Parts: sequence; structure tokens; C-alpha cells
Amino acid sequence: MSRRIIRGRMLSFEAIPQAPDDAAAYWYEADGGLLVEDGKIARRGSFAEVSAAAGEGVPVDDHRPHLILPGFIDAHAHYPQMQVIASFGAELLEWLNKYTFPEETKFSDPAHGERIAKAFLDEMVRNGTTTSAVYCTMRRESAEAFFAEAERRNMAMIAGKVMMDRNAPDALTDTPQSSYDDSKALIGRWHGRGRLSYAITPRFAITSTPEQLEMAQALVAEHPDCYMQTHLSENHAEIALANALFPKAGDYTGVYERYGLLGPKSLFGHCIHLSEREADVLSETGSVAVFCPTSNLFLGSGLFDWQRYRNRAKPLRTAMATDVGGGTNYSMLRTMDEGYKVIALNGEKINPLASFWQVTRGNAEALSLTDGIGTLDEGSDADLVVLDANATPAMRLRMETVGTLAEELFLLQTLGDDRAVAETYVAGQKAKAGLAG
Amino acid sequence: MSRRIIRGRMLSFEAIPQAPDDAAAYWYEADGGLLVEDGKIARRGSFAEVSAAAGEGVPVDDHRPHLILPGFIDAHAHYPQMQVIASFGAELLEWLNKYTFPEETKFSDPAHGERIAKAFLDEMVRNGTTTSAVYCTMRRESAEAFFAEAERRNMAMIAGKVMMDRNAPDALTDTPQSSYDDSKALIGRWHGRGRLSYAITPRFAITSTPEQLEMAQALVAEHPDCYMQTHLSENHAEIALANALFPKAGDYTGVYERYGLLGPKSLFGHCIHLSEREADVLSETGSVAVFCPTSNLFLGSGLFDWQRYRNRAKPLRTAMATDVGGGTNYSMLRTMDEGYKVIALNGEKINPLASFWQVTRGNAEALSLTDGIGTLDEGSDADLVVLDANATPAMRLRMETVGTLAEELFLLQTLGDDRAVAETYVAGQKAKAGLAG
Repeated sequence: MSRRIIRGRMLSFEAIPQAPDDAAAYWYEADGGLLVEDGKIARRGSFAEVSAAAGEGVPVDDHRPHLILPGFIDAHAHYPQMQVIASFGAELLEWLNKYTFPEETKFSDPAHGERIAKAFLDEMVRNGTTTSAVYCTMRRESAEAFFAEAERRNMAMIAGKVMMDRNAPDALTDTPQSSYDDSKALIGRWHGRGRLSYAITPRFAITSTPEQLEMAQALVAEHPDCYMQTHLSENHAEIALANALFPKAGDYTGVYERYGLLGPKSLFGHCIHLSEREADVLSETGSVAVFCPTSNLFLGSGLFDWQRYRNRAKPLRTAMATDVGGGTNYSMLRTMDEGYKVIALNGEKINPLASFWQVTRGNAEALSLTDGIGTLDEGSDADLVVLDANATPAMRLRMETVGTLAEELFLLQTLGDDRAVAETYVAGQKAKAGLAG
Repeated sequence: MSRRIIRGRMLSFEAIPQAPDDAAAYWYEADGGLLVEDGKIARRGSFAEVSAAAGEGVPVDDHRPHLILPGFIDAHAHYPQMQVIASFGAELLEWLNKYTFPEETKFSDPAHGERIAKAFLDEMVRNGTTTSAVYCTMRRESAEAFFAEAERRNMAMIAGKVMMDRNAPDALTDTPQSSYDDSKALIGRWHGRGRLSYAITPRFAITSTPEQLEMAQALVAEHPDCYMQTHLSENHAEIALANALFPKAGDYTGVYERYGLLGPKSLFGHCIHLSEREADVLSETGSVAVFCPTSNLFLGSGLFDWQRYRNRAKPLRTAMATDVGGGTNYSMLRTMDEGYKVIALNGEKINPLASFWQVTRGNAEALSLTDGIGTLDEGSDADLVVLDANATPAMRLRMETVGTLAEELFLLQTLGDDRAVAETYVAGQKAKAGLAG
């Protein structure tokens, strides 16, 4: 049995913090210890307690004075878009047709998928993200490449082959039957294998025929333990087109509703322009609205109203995500910063404890994964991020005037980037130290 | 005479680019050379031409394959706010009272001012910024410290002591007469000395009495070669308060208009919520509206409408700036990225060539400084930034698919930060290489 103690300042959330001084919402230990056994947190507490309980001879990774949290979770990303990130000048539909779809055709070459999957998971590790919900391309090979690489690294990843049978280049379209067959085969091969999960992934209403959405419905019914991920209500042109393609659905959310795709394991990327009815039905079904701040801003899609969604009479379950490559950064620190700004433009402020809750325990709740990830609870997988708020000269200077944990977290999210990630642990193993520069 | 050739890919703007392929708007040389003599660009051209003209024995700094531009210019920043950057949760007026004013009181200690001035200019160099228009505090010592440090580095800096005689803590308020006297003394001591310029700096209408604005008016009349910098129309509460304090002015811009503070050397930070009348009078007087994107977003003040201001019948002169510490980053690359996002939310896109024009030649035009900085023209000061679009693994991967100069620039502004600044030259001398890490 492998055993190791990880030492540092520990922070793990119990509930969403209501204010920057809501200490009841988290566990914080200034000199904390985690006893990691075979990749899981066997015991947590002060370093002194954990060290005494562990007995003699257990090696210690001492990260003081850094802050150790559960690894970040990214609830929506497109690994095949790494080479179109930062493409100029388009809104959503033009951006897809001009940049993204041509890029995704490259993944018919399995070697390309393998290379980009490696690069993507390197970026996750570099940025302290240990779980992501990932879109592959239409090609089954692209999902195979991603799952294989994630398995090799023992990472808790969620992914799915994109189902799309219209409004895209021929090289990127499947058929209702082939999309069903390929998804089914991938579920059989990868879902539940090691730390991997499958997400049934119709790209969005615009690129799926009614027949294909029926197939997605069948897959969801047959595999209720799989995720379902898609896009919803990102920008006005997209909404108008979705409504035109499904005139009987009433509204965009109604399309997915008709095909049984709402539910507690359903992740809807964006949800920017929801009507009250749409928000109600998402709430009633326990569906998750995924906030992608850098993408909101970069594509100019609009401003996800996180506070309104969480505080309405029928609240939404929310998650936060990079949406790379419509989003512009792999870092959840940078994503939280942009999230703060989007919420500020909506006239509210999200306190930094709530931001860090969202990208750790909050996202784990959204993914129904709190038993395994998102906290430092005993029994959890030891997926960790080690944060250094003194990573750059500008941060060091600012840290001199920081007096509270909330201020430190806010500094990390406002000024921090991958340089502030001192280490990333995946199932108890150091993963960042070994990356190429 | 010191002579040196700087080699690399050279980019310098002649006019604002109208589109990503507007090659007539810039000078680009794939293997370019600059002959630098005593801190000035004596000759520019291909490396072969410049090298032949220079003769034997001139040392060469070879920066290939990096891209060399005129140093970035930051048209609005507050050096005393380095230790309040990333302060949580407030809009403008609360942010000033809660964080910024207490911080600025520390500058009664000259040693503190000296230390922060050093740190600030280090950040400028680290981020490739060679000229900034800087607010000091109310204390004359804070301006002395800044100018002295800028002079020591031979940097082309603009700064001024803040004039503020009400609505601030006692320790931060001067009087109309003392603000006149201190400003006058500073102008006499520093304006035009080396590469330094003075900016007469009433903080904003809210913190100046009518009597103090009369003193600012006198200073501007007596020193038409100095700059005037202040804040205008940043957020709604500020506008309402300014209007309440000056009920006869008609609107916020009217306050400054009454006191003769509009004009071609006047820099107005923010200008987010201008009426048509206000925009007209700014245009007619040649006043400059300064766009501070990270600050717009961070404080939630609103969205500067760059395209509308530039394209209206009476266009505004515009500049771009960090507004540190209401802004959240020292980097003009990060600032351009956020500027793109603000403009996208206004429904337009700014092409990357126009962004890079704005922060080099465009800002030099706004500061009436194109004779000395903002281009690679012969006769200009050799203030340069050397940019590396392959600075991080994510950038390197994306660079594989970049085919045009515009795409490279957009990648630099979207994914780049201080790591993408390979070197910064100040008057022909390498300045970044010597910084502490």
C-alpha cells in the first residue's frame, strides 16, 4: 500500500459560503495534513494529528506556506479546439463554421487526436484541473484517444463523442444510427472504467435532426448513469435558428425537453438567455446550467446571470467552466476572475469563497461526484491543487497587504494563472512536476 | 556614441488599420533591423540594409524570430494602488473610500513611495510598457519619488500629484492654494526634465471644490504644454454625485468645461456613459477619452463604446489604459484582450492590428507624442517591446496553426501575458533582462 502525507494550509468547502467571512461553510487548517493511501484521502486534520495517526516513516510532501484545495473541476471544455482558441472576430455560429468545424475534421487522424489529448491533459494539470467534462469530435477515434490518455494518467475525466448529423461539413456528420452505435460502443468500452465516465453528447439542437435526438433520448434512457451534455441558449442567432428548426418545441429548452434530455445528470453549456419558463423547467428537472465566463465575453454572447439563477424561487444548479476553445483560458483561476466580472456587469458580486466553492465542491455537486472529488473529505480521491499566492512579483507585493483567507483567494483568482499552481496531484501522485515546460 | 543594431521581425503602424489585412497601415519587415544610436532609432529597414549602412563592428541583438514593436503605452494608471489591486466587491465610490484612500495615505512616508515607484516601473518593464500616464497621490512626495525613479531609468513617463480637497480623508486632502503651489513646484522641477512630463491632476470633480478646479484651470492656462488628467463618467453613482455637486454645469463633462480643462492635452479616464452632447464637446476640443477595459469589467462600471466613439460624426480621440489598481493587470496584452471583450459586448469586434495600433502609435497620438515614441520611425526614441508568441506551451501549440500577422497578434493579446515579453528596451537599453524574478 502506498502512503504519503501531504502538508500545507488546507481548504475544503462544506457548503456554499454566503459571505467572505462565512467560516462555517468550509474547513480550513493552517498547518494541515492529508494522509493519502492508495490515491485516496484516508485521514485529514492538523499535520500533528495526521502525522501521529500515520505512524513512523511515512514520507511527507511539505507544501507550506501554500494553500491546498481539491483539484479544480472544469464542467465544459472542447479538447479538439486547442488550436482554434483565440480565433478572431466571430460570434458563435460563424465561429463554428469558420474555425471550429474545419479544425475538428483533423481528428479523423487518430495520431492527431492522441497528440492533442496529451496536450489538453497537460494543460489541465498545469492549471490544477483534475476533472473536466469534455466534448470530443464527431469521430469515435477522437473519444478513444481522449479516454485512453486520461486512463493512462488515472484522471477522473468525463467525455463523449459529439453527435451531429446536420448543419456541419460532411466530414463531421454522422447519422442517427451511427451516432447511436458509436456512443453505445464507447459507453461499453469506457464508462466506469477506472475513473472515467461517459457523457452522451449531442452537440446542440442545431446540428442534430429530430431522429438523432431520439437516438440520444434512447441512449439516456438506456444509460441513466451516464451524463448528457449539450449547448443551450448561448446567443441570439443560435436561439432563433434552434426555434426555427423545432417550431413545435415552444422554446429552445423545450427541444431538449421533448427528447427527454433534461435531468440531474444533464449539463447545459451557457444558458445565457433563458426565459423564466426555461429556467423553471431546468430547475424542476435538476438540470445543470454551466457558466462559461471567458467564452461569454470572448464571443460576446451575453452575460450568464449566476446570482439570479441561484437565488430565484426555483434555483438552478450551476457549474463553472472554461469552454475552451470558445473560452480563452485553460485556467479556472482566470475563469473565476472573468466570472466575477460577468457577474459584476449583472450588478452583483460573487465573493471569492463562493467562486472557489463553485469550481471545487460546487462543480462536483453539479456532476453528482461529491463522493469522490471536490472536497478533502476522508474517502475522497486525492486530486489536489497546491496554490502559491506569491507566484509573481505583482502577487508578492499585493500579498503584503492581504490579511484574510478571502483576500488571498481573491488575489489568486484576480492575479493568478498557471504560475500560481505550484503542484497538481492526481489520485495522490504529483502530476505537474513532470510536465515539459 | 553608443551604437547597436537590433534584429527581429519589425512592426510599426502608420495609421489605424481598418481590417486584419490592411497592410497599408503598417510597416512590417520579416528580417528587420534598427540601428540605435544614443538611444534613438537612427535607421530602420531590412537587417541587410541597416547592417550595411552601419558598417563593421556594430554589435547586434538578434531577437529572431520574435516580433519587435514600439514599447507599449499605458494612458492611465495609479502607481500608489499596487497594493490594493484585486480588492473585493466594491463599485467605484465604495472602492475608493474602503481601499484606495487608506492605501494612498501610506505615501506620506517617502520611503514607501520610493519602494512602490520602483515596483511599478519594474512591472511596466516586465510587461513591455515604456510610457505611462500616472496618478500619484495627493502628497507631493509621492510624485517626487515617482519622477526620480523614472529619471533614474531614463523612461518617458508622465505623472502628476493628485489635487483633492474634499470628500476624502483629512490626511489625503490639500487646499486649493497648496495644490496649486505643489503642482507648480513639481512642474518647475520635473516637466521637460529628461524624458519626463507633468500632468496637472485634479482627481475628479467629486474630490475638488470649485475653488480647486479654478486653481487647476490657472495651472493649465499657465502651462499649456503640460497634460491635464482626470476621471470622467465612470459609473452612475459617481455621475449623479458630480452632477449634484455642480448643479449649474449641466452635465459631468460640463464641470470640466466650465473650468477650462478640456483640450488636446487633456486625458479623461473612463468616459463610459457620455451623452451625445458630452461626446461632442470632447470631440470639438480634441480631448482624449481613455478606455480602461479591465477596470470597466472589474468594477462593473460599464462598457466603453470604442467603436461608437471612433466612428461617430464627431469622433473622439481615444487611448487605452490599464487603470491599475481599478484595473486588474499591468499588461497591455491582457488589457487588449479585455478591450476586445468589452467591444464584443457592445456588438462590434476590434481587429488585432487596430488594438496594437491603439496601444502603440494610437496612444502616442492621444498623448501628442508621435515625434518621440509609439513608432519605429527614424528619429524616434528606441523604446521597444520584443514579443514571443511561443512563450507558453498553450501558445506554442496554437502558433502551429497561425498563418498571418493578424492571427499572431490576436494570439499574443488573447493568450499572452508578461511571459510573452521577451525583452523591453528603454531608450535603446535592455531593461527587462535585469529585473529580479
